[in-house]
Amino acid sequence: MYGRYTQDLGTFAKDEAARLRLQEGDTPRPRRPSELLEYTQGRCAPCRVCALQCQRFLISKVGEDWVFLILLGLVMALVSWAMDFAIATCLQAQKWMYGGLDTNVLLQYMAWVTYPTVLITFSAGFTQILAPQAVGSGIPEMKTILRGVVLKEYLTLKTFVAKVIGLTCALGSGMPLGKEGPFVHIASMCAALLSRFLSLFGGFYENEARNIEMLAAACAVGVGCCFAAPIGGVLFSIEVTSTFFAVRNYWRGFFAATFSAFIFRVLAVWNKDEETITALFKTRFRLDFPFDLQELPAFAVIGIASGFGGALFVYLNRKIVQFMRRQKTINRFLMKKRLLFPALVTLIISTLTFPPGFGQFMAGQLTQKDTLVTLFDNQTWAKQGISDEFEYLGILEAWRHPRSNVFVTLVVFILMKFWMSALATTIPVPCGAFMPVFVIGAAFGRLVGESMAAWFPDGIHTDSNIYRIVPGGYAVVGAAALSGAVTHTVSTAVIVFELTGQISHILPVMIAVILANAVAQSLQPSLYDSIIRIKKLPYLPELGWGHHEKYSVRVEDIMVRDIRYVTLNCKYRDLQQVLHSTKMKNLPLVESAESMILLGSIERTQVGALLSSQLSPQRRLLALRQKVLSEDGHRLSDSSIRFQVRGAEGPQGDPWQPPPQSASVYYHHDKLVQALKTEPGQRKKREEN
Amino acid sequence: MYGRYTQDLGTFAKDEAARLRLQEGDTPRPRRPSELLEYTQGRCAPCRVCALQCQRFLISKVGEDWVFLILLGLVMALVSWAMDFAIATCLQAQKWMYGGLDTNVLLQYMAWVTYPTVLITFSAGFTQILAPQAVGSGIPEMKTILRGVVLKEYLTLKTFVAKVIGLTCALGSGMPLGKEGPFVHIASMCAALLSRFLSLFGGFYENEARNIEMLAAACAVGVGCCFAAPIGGVLFSIEVTSTFFAVRNYWRGFFAATFSAFIFRVLAVWNKDEETITALFKTRFRLDFPFDLQELPAFAVIGIASGFGGALFVYLNRKIVQFMRRQKTINRFLMKKRLLFPALVTLIISTLTFPPGFGQFMAGQLTQKDTLVTLFDNQTWAKQGISDEFEYLGILEAWRHPRSNVFVTLVVFILMKFWMSALATTIPVPCGAFMPVFVIGAAFGRLVGESMAAWFPDGIHTDSNIYRIVPGGYAVVGAAALSGAVTHTVSTAVIVFELTGQISHILPVMIAVILANAVAQSLQPSLYDSIIRIKKLPYLPELGWGHHEKYSVRVEDIMVRDIRYVTLNCKYRDLQQVLHSTKMKNLPLVESAESMILLGSIERTQVGALLSSQLSPQRRLLALRQKVLSEDGHRLSDSSIRFQVRGAEGPQGDPWQPPPQSASVYYHHDKLVQALKTEPGQRKKREEN
Repeated sequence: MYGRYTQDLGTFAKDEAARLRLQEGDTPRPRRPSELLEYTQGRCAPCRVCALQCQRFLISKVGEDWVFLILLGLVMALVSWAMDFAIATCLQAQKWMYGGLDTNVLLQYMAWVTYPTVLITFSAGFTQILAPQAVGSGIPEMKTILRGVVLKEYLTLKTFVAKVIGLTCALGSGMPLGKEGPFVHIASMCAALLSRFLSLFGGFYENEARNIEMLAAACAVGVGCCFAAPIGGVLFSIEVTSTFFAVRNYWRGFFAATFSAFIFRVLAVWNKDEETITALFKTRFRLDFPFDLQELPAFAVIGIASGFGGALFVYLNRKIVQFMRRQKTINRFLMKKRLLFPALVTLIISTLTFPPGFGQFMAGQLTQKDTLVTLFDNQTWAKQGISDEFEYLGILEAWRHPRSNVFVTLVVFILMKFWMSALATTIPVPCGAFMPVFVIGAAFGRLVGESMAAWFPDGIHTDSNIYRIVPGGYAVVGAAALSGAVTHTVSTAVIVFELTGQISHILPVMIAVILANAVAQSLQPSLYDSIIRIKKLPYLPELGWGHHEKYSVRVEDIMVRDIRYVTLNCKYRDLQQVLHSTKMKNLPLVESAESMILLGSIERTQVGALLSSQLSPQRRLLALRQKVLSEDGHRLSDSSIRFQVRGAEGPQGDPWQPPPQSASVYYHHDKLVQALKTEPGQRKKREEN
Repeated sequence: MYGRYTQDLGTFAKDEAARLRLQEGDTPRPRRPSELLEYTQGRCAPCRVCALQCQRFLISKVGEDWVFLILLGLVMALVSWAMDFAIATCLQAQKWMYGGLDTNVLLQYMAWVTYPTVLITFSAGFTQILAPQAVGSGIPEMKTILRGVVLKEYLTLKTFVAKVIGLTCALGSGMPLGKEGPFVHIASMCAALLSRFLSLFGGFYENEARNIEMLAAACAVGVGCCFAAPIGGVLFSIEVTSTFFAVRNYWRGFFAATFSAFIFRVLAVWNKDEETITALFKTRFRLDFPFDLQELPAFAVIGIASGFGGALFVYLNRKIVQFMRRQKTINRFLMKKRLLFPALVTLIISTLTFPPGFGQFMAGQLTQKDTLVTLFDNQTWAKQGISDEFEYLGILEAWRHPRSNVFVTLVVFILMKFWMSALATTIPVPCGAFMPVFVIGAAFGRLVGESMAAWFPDGIHTDSNIYRIVPGGYAVVGAAALSGAVTHTVSTAVIVFELTGQISHILPVMIAVILANAVAQSLQPSLYDSIIRIKKLPYLPELGWGHHEKYSVRVEDIMVRDIRYVTLNCKYRDLQQVLHSTKMKNLPLVESAESMILLGSIERTQVGALLSSQLSPQRRLLALRQKVLSEDGHRLSDSSIRFQVRGAEGPQGDPWQPPPQSASVYYHHDKLVQALKTEPGQRKKREEN
């Protein structure tokens, strides 16, 4: 907010000057030679005139919204498809390596573990070096940016490259990481870069309001081309990133997301991967009797349990980050060896999923995509057994174990994946948490569905027709409910319909998603809000819902009336007094005490820094000593960290490491405080040492 | 806008007084006996304490949002189901009557024509007498109300009753009318009444902002329980009624709409109409290969043609209203015989659809529901012929004619229904236009689909498998595209998926809907905006999309700087001067010329009326003569009509009849003008006559 304001102050003067100059210069400017071309004679003149007119027409069209949106959709579809291709190749390479070494278990283990470790370490290192801003999901940052805060380096080409390559490596490793959040970020960067590129041709891309609208559309494109789910993408991006949504922006999202999803799927058809355009995870549930009315309580149970599960996931994720941050010794060690933590986590997770080892009890050999395909399967595993006669025998086999049954495998899978996903998403690589949570939810739904199928082998319906229970439908419901609970969105329901290509389970899905949301929202913030808090991004929290008392709170009930302020013509002493008399972290700057026109705000620490750099050494020492005596040093240093995080530098990607510059400031202040606390004699002695 | 402002001014003083009184009365109020109950002794005391606590708990819960939303969903589901039941009974009665009289064509015709005429006439008369506000769709009015304008009598019990009964009769008549717009209105009235009812228990329902949020949720419920389409309902209501949408209101819509749709469908199951909860118009298209990539151009053609068709529909609808309004003689005659127009229109339409007559060429015997079921049918009519072996032979038979083929029937159906729907929706009964347009769109889609099937009998795909073209899929695409074009919404796509229970055609539907929107939005306003303009509701038009020049327009570029204003202490002469010097229809009212604090605005005609009632007859005549000389009478009378429509009375339901009060004012002014234009001698003579 204030970040933008100070920027606006700077540009305002320039704008005004430009306007005035424009008004003055109302006299017709001299015509360029190209404009006079129509009146010149010559053989090539008509051709050149025609070419010029075409050029002018194209340039005028470049400014249209739909050209921009089509270009954005096209680019993102290509990026998405290329990344999917690269990720699939990476995963195949691992499978091939693992399969080729089946003579020696140790070699197999080495291959299984080394491959993802190398990839994740490379991804972490590459991102760290090129653009630390590319780390993490990106949705929390987009949420902040769409509110109008300028986060530096978040929408640059460097970050784009870092995010695309880092994400491809991270997902190619087979860790339980998602690509949906990063895609939102990638699409936004794409839109920002595209608008900067197009502004070379026409001047219509410099309006800030329009850029924000385009970014909102880009978020929709990100989700849309990630899951080939245009409607769900638009809704999800609205729910996740906006508080107030301009409906006139709606069509932009739909247009771009549909185009992007279309191209994304057409590429698959052209590449002969598929025969025609269909859903990504197509299900084949029966249409005439999708579920019985009496199964609804089971769906409601899935919803409520998913709500608790989702809240637990958010809590666990935050606790892991906070634990790592609080352990000073671990923290300092890891800060030196930045790549150790990712490598360690990857090592642990890939060791546990090693198929001949513990992985055999949790279908460890399946990739995320295969897991989803099997979970949405039409068969009833518990009753009919894993069918041997079907062509997808290979991947369904993973859920069968000779010494345990399907239920145990599912429970182990859910429990292990739960903490693994929560841990893996704290690795400082570009990654999201949507897909892992989605898979866990599907597994939980499948578990409930299999239990129901075992309980009612011939279905609940007691009429003439026997309609067996479809556990795959439960998996769909569970996936939507858990991902909805973690992200606090209802539109996961729509995403699920578009992913599976079937909408027959609409009522169970909606009921489960709403119940999951109700439970999760009353327990924990959404995953994105949680990350915003952890990273201390400048963001006003939302009021939440269902609390009618909030409707009668007025601004005057909570506002502070006696605020100390800085005037334009105040003295050093006035400043000092203001700093002493208030503990506010931001001081308002007004024109004068009489007019009280607000010019902006200044950070307390900035004032402090300016004061200490401007005052003479003697007076500075004296002033600082007073300052130290009047306040404890801790708050000062704490706020200096926050300044660094909030201020010019922008938050660092790695959530639990304070950024390096901030650390130096921190130590610097600490030294000063210590220096001032000791007596002059002692200080001298220490300096001699 | 200004309507609310003047109201606010009135209530502001009361609010402030109440606040001050509250602050003064901070001394503890005397405890009521019930609060002291816990400390009294006696045998029944514990029971009574417990009962009181329960009561208090319930009362505190009544204030919660979700209680309200559940109640709203429940009531609306019951209303929707009961109305559907009544409408189905009405339609069956007509069919039964028509079927019973098959011995005599004349008697059959009489029965076929009289029945709808009586129903429509009753509906029109009943609505006119009880609450003229219930006439029409209701969405334009809700759009205006949600912007904050207070329209009187639009959310009352009387209007509710008139709308429910009027709509039931209107739809029961079998005319091409829709129920989706009225349902939005009914749900909003339901919410308003419910919140007034619940405020008897708790005091949380008096907040205006909250009421508006609840109304927005109610709009979603209206669409949701009309089509059993919760997601589409929420999106449609957002697109149609909002410009800026508060995302925190999102869950409310989803919650209430889902609950409502659930109850609505459960009622059908309990009533043994259906075996389990499924879609309303379930389709059974094949899942593995829904459409070929090479069919997409055909879908795009449907989209573009629907765009033109939708714009034409809106244009036609408006022209009919304007034509009826402009024909003074027809207008005056119809104003006296208000019920003649509805009866006449019904007579014409039902005569044309009479099955043994012209109706045999346009499947006239089918109800709207049957038409949709047949159009979404899985068979290919042109190639396979209307299948005889299927159980729904009865209704499919209507499309087959021995002396013509399916294409002719479809073309005749589309052309006839097009103007019939445009005409029927101008009848002053509660009715919408969504469903008729939806049906026409489906028929058009079917036509294209059948043509494609005839062109490519074995499908386009030339691989090993033969996938035939599914004309039903084209019908779905056409329905979504045309209704999207008429209403300028994208969410008809989602409604279509929920209505048919299949999402496999998502990409064709999205492409067609977006293309239809692009074409229609560049040609005409949406149907609702068109009605808003016809009814002259106070509503700021939207900027529209795709015009980047609008981004660089500043307020100062279009604002008027030298505005004449009225001060609190101005004299009659000042007022007169202001009226003479400006032609603005609204005059700003400021505190004083020095402070220039805006207090509100006043209509020019109101000032004129006040002036003429306050001034003495002599001076009034003089002043009016000056006024007439300086302005032409036409503008005055025109603005007086607008005042009546905009002002206290609210717009009348019947779109092309100026409201009666307005008419009297109109004539009054006309007389005055004429009186003033004639010389005193002539006037006296005329008065003697």
